[in-house]
Amino acid sequence: MIEYEQSSGIVREVFDDIRATRKTTDINNFWKVLANHPPTLQRTWETLKQVMGGPGELDPLVRELIYVAVSVTNGCDYCIASHRAAAVAKGMTDGMFGELMSIVGVANMNNRLANGFQVPLDDKFK
Amino acid sequence: MIEYEQSSGIVREVFDDIRATRKTTDINNFWKVLANHPPTLQRTWETLKQVMGGPGELDPLVRELIYVAVSVTNGCDYCIASHRAAAVAKGMTDGMFGELMSIVGVANMNNRLANGFQVPLDDKFK
Amino acid sequence: MIEYEQSSGIVREVFDDIRATRKTTDINNFWKVLANHPPTLQRTWETLKQVMGGPGELDPLVRELIYVAVSVTNGCDYCIASHRAAAVAKGMTDGMFGELMSIVGVANMNNRLANGFQVPLDDKFK
Amino acid sequence: MIEYEQSSGIVREVFDDIRATRKTTDINNFWKVLANHPPTLQRTWETLKQVMGGPGELDPLVRELIYVAVSVTNGCDYCIASHRAAAVAKGMTDGMFGELMSIVGVANMNNRLANGFQVPLDDKFK
Amino acid sequence: MIEYEQSSGIVREVFDDIRATRKTTDINNFWKVLANHPPTLQRTWETLKQVMGGPGELDPLVRELIYVAVSVTNGCDYCIASHRAAAVAKGMTDGMFGELMSIVGVANMNNRLANGFQVPLDDKFK
Amino acid sequence: MIEYEQSSGIVREVFDDIRATRKTTDINNFWKVLANHPPTLQRTWETLKQVMGGPGELDPLVRELIYVAVSVTNGCDYCIASHRAAAVAKGMTDGMFGELMSIVGVANMNNRLANGFQVPLDDKFK
Repeated sequence: MIEYEQSSGIVREVFDDIRATRKTTDINNFWKVLANHPPTLQRTWETLKQVMGGPGELDPLVRELIYVAVSVTNGCDYCIASHRAAAVAKGMTDGMFGELMSIVGVANMNNRLANGFQVPLDDKFK
Repeated sequence: MIEYEQSSGIVREVFDDIRATRKTTDINNFWKVLANHPPTLQRTWETLKQVMGGPGELDPLVRELIYVAVSVTNGCDYCIASHRAAAVAKGMTDGMFGELMSIVGVANMNNRLANGFQVPLDDKFK
Repeated sequence: MIEYEQSSGIVREVFDDIRATRKTTDINNFWKVLANHPPTLQRTWETLKQVMGGPGELDPLVRELIYVAVSVTNGCDYCIASHRAAAVAKGMTDGMFGELMSIVGVANMNNRLANGFQVPLDDKFK
Repeated sequence: MIEYEQSSGIVREVFDDIRATRKTTDINNFWKVLANHPPTLQRTWETLKQVMGGPGELDPLVRELIYVAVSVTNGCDYCIASHRAAAVAKGMTDGMFGELMSIVGVANMNNRLANGFQVPLDDKFK
Repeated sequence: MIEYEQSSGIVREVFDDIRATRKTTDINNFWKVLANHPPTLQRTWETLKQVMGGPGELDPLVRELIYVAVSVTNGCDYCIASHRAAAVAKGMTDGMFGELMSIVGVANMNNRLANGFQVPLDDKFK
Repeated sequence: MIEYEQSSGIVREVFDDIRATRKTTDINNFWKVLANHPPTLQRTWETLKQVMGGPGELDPLVRELIYVAVSVTNGCDYCIASHRAAAVAKGMTDGMFGELMSIVGVANMNNRLANGFQVPLDDKFK
């Protein structure tokens, strides 16, 4: 992991932008590890900043809920923990989290029922 | 596939409830195929009705966005097509769909970066 | 696809073994396509024959049910169709198929609930 | 985690039913964590009880083998550990576990061979 | 799908860059569909161009093999077909494709054996 | 885990072959755990030796990169750690690892964009 104090060049620029954008001196381990490959760090940060924080019709909390849904489906422990915290910071209540989990669970179940029963697509969805 | 006209018993009851809940005489192929195993049809419908349509803090459109996010991550063609239509019916614009896809894409990418770089969990997330 | 009549060498030997083992002259497309890379054809067939048909404690139908469960979870259309047929040939009833699907669905749901709620492992399972 | 002693209302009812059904005072962490969202706890328990323990053609051990197969495919550590223990309790021998793993492994391999070689569906499976 | 002739603004600029970079007037359906959400089109193209075609230590064919390996693992039909063609254009022989598939298959199998047998990490890998 | 000193019969033979092939007395935990089911140990080792080390057109480092790509996509922690080490032993630099991760990430993202936007297959890929 590359700490802020050790960083320079592109890595330092990205770290400064993370601090400024998030209004905290704290930098998540995710970025400190990605800093081992500066082009990946830079591209990943620019993409995430744009997609999760740029202008758009979906509000920031809804974006985090979607991000958590994907991470839970894929079983990425780091991403679940960090984005659950981000969702809480943006207003996710315990009740919302429970509802989110139940939707993610049901969608994962029904995806397999549709696969397994080999359901043909309705004409109206074509 | 079991059509409404052929249905009886539990299957007919579920079909009637689907029609009443959705305010349409149309029944999706998903349910017509599940009708081959009545207990699965009944349980799946009750669960979906509760989770997607029951009382809660997340509004119906947000629930559909989450459902689509899971289905896209899993690559379930039937579920993507049917729940994209459901999301549109609940107000999803083309812009929202584009944002949804970009979040789903980025989360799937970052889940793998976290896996591959073996990022250790920050103390603050424990 | 390489047809039986066109085959020679290792491919012909494997095709002959498939016919003898399965007691049919029919060869599934899966093998005809794998025949484009003979070492993969041979290794895959030997492995499948051993694992699905060799001596063991699990009976042939149970092995097929497990195979279908994995294929449905992964959403492999070809594998679902071909192994569902194999399971039927070994005695799977419509009722068993419905139960199989409901277990696969519930396990996929609960896997995500365990992921998302970040359930700590019970001491007794360590 | 919500312990039995702290529970009340719906959570207490579900905990009592888990204890009665499983004939033990011990409650797995999975349920103690789900108890944070009572409707999800209740629905998940009712579903699991019905699907894994209700009447049907598949015997309880076979149901657990299928459940483990899905959990291993998805890489859910908690579910693998807890349902492997459940399968052992229902009679799974070390030999059966080894066979189960080899089938799950081979199905996961062959699912990708079918995907990658883009095998067309045989007419007889349509 | 948005055709080149219909495109304007950012979409037209991206389409022109795709044509120039790939030295062909042909544009894949993937880009024509993404054009419905211009920011996603632009970001996705810039990212792909950089990652698959930018300077680096891995040669272009190896990059395509890795891309195909991921697409086969996820079962993305469109991506398998389009990137298999891209790999062939960069020099992938039938033999290489067969080897690629066998590695992807074996890795998918062994990933599940490691999951299912709950193999503890060797000290030397920590 | 079955240690070398405790092994006998088929397990000892496989362990000896692993030591001879890898030119080390060290045996990874993966094999020590698989040794609990000798036929799976033997078949898995023979397959891996052939696919990763046998004659072919892809060089050993490229094979490991592909193996890591699959393991990262599936989120198999053990496999990522052990095959990353194997790739380093065969010449993978930090730069190559960074590029590998960025390709794996982008392919995982684009697989979902293709799924979600339901991109129709171009005629030229049929």
